[in-house]
Amino acid sequence: MTETFNISIIGAGRVGWHLAQALSAAGHTIQEIWSRRQSQAQLLAAKLPKARVVHSLDFSESLSQVFLLTVTDAALGEVSQRLLLPKSAVAAHTSGSQPLSILNSIAGSTGVFYPLQTFSKEKEVDLAEVPFFIEGSDPATTLILEALARTLSDKIHRASGEQRRQLHLAAVFASNFSNHMLRIANDLLQQSNLPTDLLHPLIEETLQKAITLGPAPAQTGPALRGDLPILEQHQKQLLAHPKWMQLYKLISDDILEKSKINKQ
Amino acid sequence: MTETFNISIIGAGRVGWHLAQALSAAGHTIQEIWSRRQSQAQLLAAKLPKARVVHSLDFSESLSQVFLLTVTDAALGEVSQRLLLPKSAVAAHTSGSQPLSILNSIAGSTGVFYPLQTFSKEKEVDLAEVPFFIEGSDPATTLILEALARTLSDKIHRASGEQRRQLHLAAVFASNFSNHMLRIANDLLQQSNLPTDLLHPLIEETLQKAITLGPAPAQTGPALRGDLPILEQHQKQLLAHPKWMQLYKLISDDILEKSKINKQ
Repeated sequence: MTETFNISIIGAGRVGWHLAQALSAAGHTIQEIWSRRQSQAQLLAAKLPKARVVHSLDFSESLSQVFLLTVTDAALGEVSQRLLLPKSAVAAHTSGSQPLSILNSIAGSTGVFYPLQTFSKEKEVDLAEVPFFIEGSDPATTLILEALARTLSDKIHRASGEQRRQLHLAAVFASNFSNHMLRIANDLLQQSNLPTDLLHPLIEETLQKAITLGPAPAQTGPALRGDLPILEQHQKQLLAHPKWMQLYKLISDDILEKSKINKQ
Repeated sequence: MTETFNISIIGAGRVGWHLAQALSAAGHTIQEIWSRRQSQAQLLAAKLPKARVVHSLDFSESLSQVFLLTVTDAALGEVSQRLLLPKSAVAAHTSGSQPLSILNSIAGSTGVFYPLQTFSKEKEVDLAEVPFFIEGSDPATTLILEALARTLSDKIHRASGEQRRQLHLAAVFASNFSNHMLRIANDLLQQSNLPTDLLHPLIEETLQKAITLGPAPAQTGPALRGDLPILEQHQKQLLAHPKWMQLYKLISDDILEKSKINKQ
């Protein structure tokens, strides 16, 4: 039998939004939702059977055993200083970039509960495949957070703050930056009145190759071939977009350099 | 009934490799394969029922009606100058970046047969969803190339050289550059002895969001949030990789700038 927990969610942004619903669906009870933006807390609470929106960070009377701090990195320090928790509760943040020690002002057990995923409120996400990285202030807390994560996903790992920071940096390249490349591609087509869905099969194949072959052997294109006339032509096409031209040059140089190392 | 053609493939690189096999599977007969690299031509011919490897670009006695020039952009000019074709044959190149006029030294009908896709020999690719962009030196040639493309895919478009160049540039961002972001992410994890498959669910979700929501609304991360302390921390983590640090800064600036425009 899986243990179920009473949980409070501090922060109703993208991460809180998805975690709260997934935890509720996994059989846990979300007791309270707190958010700086009340309207967001209300929208989220409406999707959960028992959750109440609370206006204070004094949770000393709460029934919750686990408090997930899903607020932004910038707010973590201040919110955790204002937080009052019941005895023997666990407070965990969900940030890839922040050390466990940012929760030091909390009297009780603390931890990290970091899902390596990109969340948008407009799209549901299946957490079963998502890796969770866990850290605890003590072994018992680590076990509690691992047990909680295991009710959402099979991929539970322990990670230090340093490993998490590296994972988060890699995730920025793999997700935010690759997505920005897709955005620039879309913008270029829109500026030429070409439909952006023309790119979908290419994008899907690029991803499948990167996963099945690995991104290094999957690479193709003019930079990899060292096709200097095309690289020059493309930069000319980007004359109206100096930042994209600079990006084009920098990324192409890096691809070209790596392809030379591979050939040696 | 679909018309079938006799076809010769000039160039046994990635594009020739996949087009020849797809055309053969679609019922056409690949008569000859020419490549600067004989071994590649032989490997490809071995996968096709009737194809012969030829060593000369004199095709004046060939049975083929269509000659697809799949050589690199850099070789197109020279190869087309040496090409001798039978009367009333059509010669088409498959490049996104080259104008139709690069085939001007060919006496007969010429065209462009450009599939917007990334091809690696190590991975099969389903062409049915791939958009083909067609241009012909005259209306009859355009119709022939469109008929040929339609045997491979439902997504047939006419495009001028200028539109093709823009498509190709967008494809470099959407495929080569997004793939390079995945490669940097992999390298960062490997350098910390973390397994790269941790990123797979994130990468898949990023792609699905970019396609279902569009990449602009799908964007997340520290640059979008304007989270300057994290942006600084990440750049510090990249101190050993000056080029990636520069890339990090440039891409984040562009994301940040776009997010400000969106908020206005």
